[in-house]
Amino acid sequence: MDPDQLSKHFVEHYYTTFDTNRLALINLYQEGSMLTFEGEKIQGAQSISNKLNSLPFQQCKHNISTVDCQPSGLSGGWVVFVSGNLQLPGEEHLLKFSQMFHLAPTPQGSFYVFNDIFRLNYA
Amino acid sequence: MDPDQLSKHFVEHYYTTFDTNRLALINLYQEGSMLTFEGEKIQGAQSISNKLNSLPFQQCKHNISTVDCQPSGLSGGWVVFVSGNLQLPGEEHLLKFSQMFHLAPTPQGSFYVFNDIFRLNYA
Repeated sequence: MDPDQLSKHFVEHYYTTFDTNRLALINLYQEGSMLTFEGEKIQGAQSISNKLNSLPFQQCKHNISTVDCQPSGLSGGWVVFVSGNLQLPGEEHLLKFSQMFHLAPTPQGSFYVFNDIFRLNYA
Repeated sequence: MDPDQLSKHFVEHYYTTFDTNRLALINLYQEGSMLTFEGEKIQGAQSISNKLNSLPFQQCKHNISTVDCQPSGLSGGWVVFVSGNLQLPGEEHLLKFSQMFHLAPTPQGSFYVFNDIFRLNYA
């Protein structure tokens, strides 16, 4: 599979889901998945979903600036690196962020998020 | 090994080497290593070293803001996510950057950089 196509497809799917149906993000994680969100470490699909759905904003819009992707090694996974900005309702300033995902293959031929690290880029 | 300790040690070593002895960075990569530098894809230790040593500045100083680390899966590797800024001589403004590394174990019990993705964070 073309890594650039795969990663763009994943990134579009991830942030569209985040912005329109955040509860459904749980389907992209599994029990062993890890999220580090602004330095806070969370493990497991349910805990990650709880964290993402308890962020102090209900509505948001992610705008993507760059997507980079590489195969992550022998296991058939991919690392995906994203930069962009986050728009919150009533906020004049965009919040710049960087995020990396390590996508691991499922036995069904799809992928899930094994590693997820998110950081705001303070100006 | 404590992942936070491992990643901080690696990050200090990487950027100190970059800032003081850039040619020695080649030792941190192997033939299968990949670098995506501002969207440009480079593979292999020699080509990566050539790229890093042909950047249009001789002197620089990396200042690290955050380091996050997670185990990358069954293979004993680690993903490391860094944010910081880059100081160039004669430049008033700091260049903010984000970078991710996927460190893979060597048979000797050390690590090398398998994946490396670097992006400047334009304000």
